[in-house]
Amino acid sequence: MKSKVTIADVAKAAGVSNSAVSYALNGKDGVSEKTRSKVLAVADHLGWKPNSAAKALSDASTRTVGLVLTYATSVLSVESYTTELIAGLTSEFEKEGYSLLVRASSNREYELSVLREWIATGAVDAVLLMNIELGDPRIELFKSHPDMPVLLLCDEKLSEGLPSLSDNERSAAHLIVDYCHETGHRRIARVAGPEEMGHTFIRDNAFREEVMELDMRYTCLHSDYSPQAGARCTERLLALPDRPTAIVYDNDVMAVSAIRTAAALGIRVPDDLAIISWDDSFMCEMSTPSVTALNRDVVARGRRAARMLIELAEQHAVRPVIEDDNDLIFRESSAANVAMAA
Amino acid sequence: MKSKVTIADVAKAAGVSNSAVSYALNGKDGVSEKTRSKVLAVADHLGWKPNSAAKALSDASTRTVGLVLTYATSVLSVESYTTELIAGLTSEFEKEGYSLLVRASSNREYELSVLREWIATGAVDAVLLMNIELGDPRIELFKSHPDMPVLLLCDEKLSEGLPSLSDNERSAAHLIVDYCHETGHRRIARVAGPEEMGHTFIRDNAFREEVMELDMRYTCLHSDYSPQAGARCTERLLALPDRPTAIVYDNDVMAVSAIRTAAALGIRVPDDLAIISWDDSFMCEMSTPSVTALNRDVVARGRRAARMLIELAEQHAVRPVIEDDNDLIFRESSAANVAMAA
Repeated sequence: MKSKVTIADVAKAAGVSNSAVSYALNGKDGVSEKTRSKVLAVADHLGWKPNSAAKALSDASTRTVGLVLTYATSVLSVESYTTELIAGLTSEFEKEGYSLLVRASSNREYELSVLREWIATGAVDAVLLMNIELGDPRIELFKSHPDMPVLLLCDEKLSEGLPSLSDNERSAAHLIVDYCHETGHRRIARVAGPEEMGHTFIRDNAFREEVMELDMRYTCLHSDYSPQAGARCTERLLALPDRPTAIVYDNDVMAVSAIRTAAALGIRVPDDLAIISWDDSFMCEMSTPSVTALNRDVVARGRRAARMLIELAEQHAVRPVIEDDNDLIFRESSAANVAMAA
Repeated sequence: MKSKVTIADVAKAAGVSNSAVSYALNGKDGVSEKTRSKVLAVADHLGWKPNSAAKALSDASTRTVGLVLTYATSVLSVESYTTELIAGLTSEFEKEGYSLLVRASSNREYELSVLREWIATGAVDAVLLMNIELGDPRIELFKSHPDMPVLLLCDEKLSEGLPSLSDNERSAAHLIVDYCHETGHRRIARVAGPEEMGHTFIRDNAFREEVMELDMRYTCLHSDYSPQAGARCTERLLALPDRPTAIVYDNDVMAVSAIRTAAALGIRVPDDLAIISWDDSFMCEMSTPSVTALNRDVVARGRRAARMLIELAEQHAVRPVIEDDNDLIFRESSAANVAMAA
């Protein structure tokens, strides 16, 4: 039934001309972004499917994988994670002649319209989804379009059966909390990523679980991953009457900016405060003091994701993969809690 | 005459089957990367042109701009320039619904085969070329395919009449040398990028011009932009009998790594050695001491490039643009030459 939906039906429901629908569904010029987005949403809602000729065209392999970067430009341009991931993805794609199609998006609505366009036009052979949120509408979208292969960079628990590649966030959280405990810290804090992110949620739970088990004091502030938020949260935590002796940051940018914030407040790292970063990067290594960090090889993650995406693009099934190589690189920013030892 | 070249002619000259040529020229699966690359080179050499049906298809707007990243993964994953450029490009493309098609390449030959593929298949509406080299074969390629719009990120002197967006490297070099001279430095050095790069060549000349004018001692070492090369060159320069009192680095990664190298050698920054970075980045800001840097807004360069590329993709002409907003951000890593002042 659904396959009988015509371009005219979509045009009528969207209140635009047939040719506007045609342009939008074929990813062509001649229609505003707003109209394109509306048409794609309506077509998707009505269950429009391309006709056989267009379908043959869209079924043709494009050797292209799509990625939408939904980030503030200010975060995207400084954070190492995405750069390292793209470096790994593209270097693996090079071997098979695949391309990465990148779109930036400042909000989830626009990202959804891009994904609908890719599904409608077959512009890509597979899609990589990052930063899965709780109740993420992108999961529903791909579950209702099983023809478009997708790989989610998230915990299997959040992927609702779609192929996933994830870190073992729980074991990482336990590793970090245990290290803080062993080095004498009893009041720790964490500057986390955005609360609505799936991996933040999983880290939040794992942290709470372990600090309760070890009977430690724990404060968590959520942020947008930016250096400014990192500095602000650090200031708030260090102003607490019974301030933490160790702070864990969910990305490298915030951890490195905290080194400067602590120095400005006259708080010595690591003597008065231990700083630990969830992501390692060149910045953590080069910072003074250098920053203790969780050692995950993000470039290797990108390579692994690329291989899974090529499998998916070529219509092979893949099993969910959980990378479990968590390890801490001990650097100058962390040490035994001097106050406790004294 | 050239338009009469057939797929069979290409197949014969390349020593492969007609279908292999067809797959290669249409960017489809079913042919190895090596064969694809060979076919595209032969087709290009013979002057093969797609037939009218395929041409109509390839003439259709794809709203996509192609970029090949020809970098070592180890450099790509740490350097800020490319990340900031991509952040700027994609954020501007978002407004017009354009995509960035990214391919990685570990060598120029592979990059050329990707560019030939894009020209043959019309997979992109325009191409952005970075890191132009002296006598760059990509310039010849695009000059002989005027149908594919291209923007070169390089000095107008190197672009051979193709559209270009560049920094005023000469005025930047003079600004840096003059600052070193004014702060009392008479022996300066520079750790430059690869010698074959066009912008390195232009910087090299501008530096030599200005140090000769001001009668300063000047040593230049060329590198591959990696932190390892930065450290190695710094060690060599600091081991010179009459070592430089200021070193200028052509990227942020090398400048930041030099801070650590100098510290390990017991050389104080800025007292014994001033360090200046050509590219500013979050890393320069966060380093201890923070690094004096040339302030070029690379994200804004990316946005400007995106607007020029959209103009070109839509068949409008653009004039060469020279960004001339060079400015130094004075941070902790540079100061008056104490030894000279004493």
